[in-house]
Amino acid sequence: MKRREFLRAAGAGLAASAVATPAIAQSMPELKWRLTASWPKSLDTLFGACEDFSKRVAESTDNKFQIQIFAAGEVVPGLQVLDAVQNGTVEMGHTAAYYFWGKDPSFAFATAIPFGLNARQQDAWQLRAGGFELLDPLFADFGCYGIPMGNTCAQMGGWFRKEIKTVADLKGLKFRIGGFAGNVIKRLGVVPQSIAPSDIYPALEKGALDAVEWIGPYDDEKLGFYKVAKYYYYPGWWEGGAHAHLLINRSKWNGLSKSYQSIITAAAREAGVGMTARYDYLNPPAMKRLIAKGTQLRPFSAEILEASFKAANDVYADMGKRNARFKKILDSIMAFHRESYSWWQVCELPFDSFQVRMLRRT
Amino acid sequence: MKRREFLRAAGAGLAASAVATPAIAQSMPELKWRLTASWPKSLDTLFGACEDFSKRVAESTDNKFQIQIFAAGEVVPGLQVLDAVQNGTVEMGHTAAYYFWGKDPSFAFATAIPFGLNARQQDAWQLRAGGFELLDPLFADFGCYGIPMGNTCAQMGGWFRKEIKTVADLKGLKFRIGGFAGNVIKRLGVVPQSIAPSDIYPALEKGALDAVEWIGPYDDEKLGFYKVAKYYYYPGWWEGGAHAHLLINRSKWNGLSKSYQSIITAAAREAGVGMTARYDYLNPPAMKRLIAKGTQLRPFSAEILEASFKAANDVYADMGKRNARFKKILDSIMAFHRESYSWWQVCELPFDSFQVRMLRRT
Repeated sequence: MKRREFLRAAGAGLAASAVATPAIAQSMPELKWRLTASWPKSLDTLFGACEDFSKRVAESTDNKFQIQIFAAGEVVPGLQVLDAVQNGTVEMGHTAAYYFWGKDPSFAFATAIPFGLNARQQDAWQLRAGGFELLDPLFADFGCYGIPMGNTCAQMGGWFRKEIKTVADLKGLKFRIGGFAGNVIKRLGVVPQSIAPSDIYPALEKGALDAVEWIGPYDDEKLGFYKVAKYYYYPGWWEGGAHAHLLINRSKWNGLSKSYQSIITAAAREAGVGMTARYDYLNPPAMKRLIAKGTQLRPFSAEILEASFKAANDVYADMGKRNARFKKILDSIMAFHRESYSWWQVCELPFDSFQVRMLRRT
Repeated sequence: MKRREFLRAAGAGLAASAVATPAIAQSMPELKWRLTASWPKSLDTLFGACEDFSKRVAESTDNKFQIQIFAAGEVVPGLQVLDAVQNGTVEMGHTAAYYFWGKDPSFAFATAIPFGLNARQQDAWQLRAGGFELLDPLFADFGCYGIPMGNTCAQMGGWFRKEIKTVADLKGLKFRIGGFAGNVIKRLGVVPQSIAPSDIYPALEKGALDAVEWIGPYDDEKLGFYKVAKYYYYPGWWEGGAHAHLLINRSKWNGLSKSYQSIITAAAREAGVGMTARYDYLNPPAMKRLIAKGTQLRPFSAEILEASFKAANDVYADMGKRNARFKKILDSIMAFHRESYSWWQVCELPFDSFQVRMLRRT
């Protein structure tokens, strides 16, 4: 109150709109940043999360902090987001960190690992069970600060031109598969391919690929895979809850005021909830449409799932012997995995299972 | 840039720390608000979400917007949060809206209804499928603005002194049960009781109650129910994903600047993710401890689940005939429920089921 009275007195006669305290000027400077995404604009689930985030930051700062969003290829290609943020080409990126497992295999844990955590577990591990703290030094090694921003939820196992029933059917299959999982599936004879989303369809159409996985019904429908591959397999055991990440150039992050850091963190987490909710809202009708267009749903056979499970554990054991950080993070995630699913089987799974049982009756 | 130069010129000779533009003064005034929770401090899951929220708002506003948190009973009792916010006794509250279903049965939809949505579905319905827009006029009728802030996830079915196997075993059972579900379970002969958390244990100990349900292992362990009732049933079919709400006095909300509204919304949603993650992190070890202390896990029998399912649908049909708003929101939630579980059975459920199957093998 006193301060306001003093303000009025001090400000009398001045063009009031043009005066600010240094304290406020420091904490709320005008900033224009750029964010490059790994996704095309058409994927409004993933790209939409970036737009929600940018809008929230602008609204929370009276439009002082503006973040312009670029689709994959506008500034850098979709799989070069980490480099672009690290080099300072842009201040921010939105990507799946597991694309960069070739630089360091521990990047896989930030997104999803085969037979790993589901969406809520991935949140709980990162926010409460030490996951964020384990991943932070990894992002720091690459000049970034990483905040989870959105989960795709359990993904589908992808589109196959032919039915696959046994492990033998996988031999020699050219399969576009995201992230670390290629490592696992090649032990089953698959030839994994890493391709950014906008290049997948042409490769599948030309026959350079036998199968592709991307995310789930809504995004996959937009990319058109159903037109050239009929069999849609489930579940995508290599990404039961894949987290996207907001990456921020670390020195840019460190240069922000505490209030801007706070606004960004809250906005990223909120945009993450919004992205997950968008998937949960948009996938069900998309699945219906795909089935109406002739898509054939197929579950992976027990033989394939169990062989994949064994292959994943073999890869983890090998990688863990060669890389201490990988081993440390793997141990943390797997301890949480065991504990969490012990509880999940008591409460969530029986609830959902009963709901599905009743649904099938009506 | 020009504006800043003008600032320097205009500000010369003034005590700089005491000058602010009206624009900034309007959007970032110093505010001290109070939030009353329906929970005791000891429930650091629910109460913790309020603290996270308040901390985030303070950090995002350079401590200009301070929200003081009060536990149940400090300002008003736990079940009077809606009245306190509506009357302006406090500016904000954190509660489960379904406590107030007696004022209007549609409040049930804001939190959870029997055989309703799971946690992620509840988010998706509220954020994307029109749930927020349907609930907003209801909150407005009670002078509030409501933002979902945290989900308890699927809850347990509660603590029973004796085993219950059949619907006949439920007859005359005095059962503390939260929210709208009492309406359903009384059709099975149960005598439902609505009691705030801190009063439940004494009632159970004295034998004034035969059974209680609260939330899940972590909170229930704190409230000590395992000491007086041995059988712990699952799943809590009346709250498969119960949303807590941040309630804000509506005229206070309307008086806030857009940036403060934005900061509050993001902080509430972020605190919500944090609360859910806390449950997912804390429940598993709590369940282990309870079992070590002699708790006996029991699933509700198919007979009881199916009778409850039928009773719930009967209640919905009756209530829908008498109350147009109830019918309208019910139709929205049930359409989403059907669509969402049609998809859930394809992707999430098979993923989680396989994980649990492998867990049991090792």
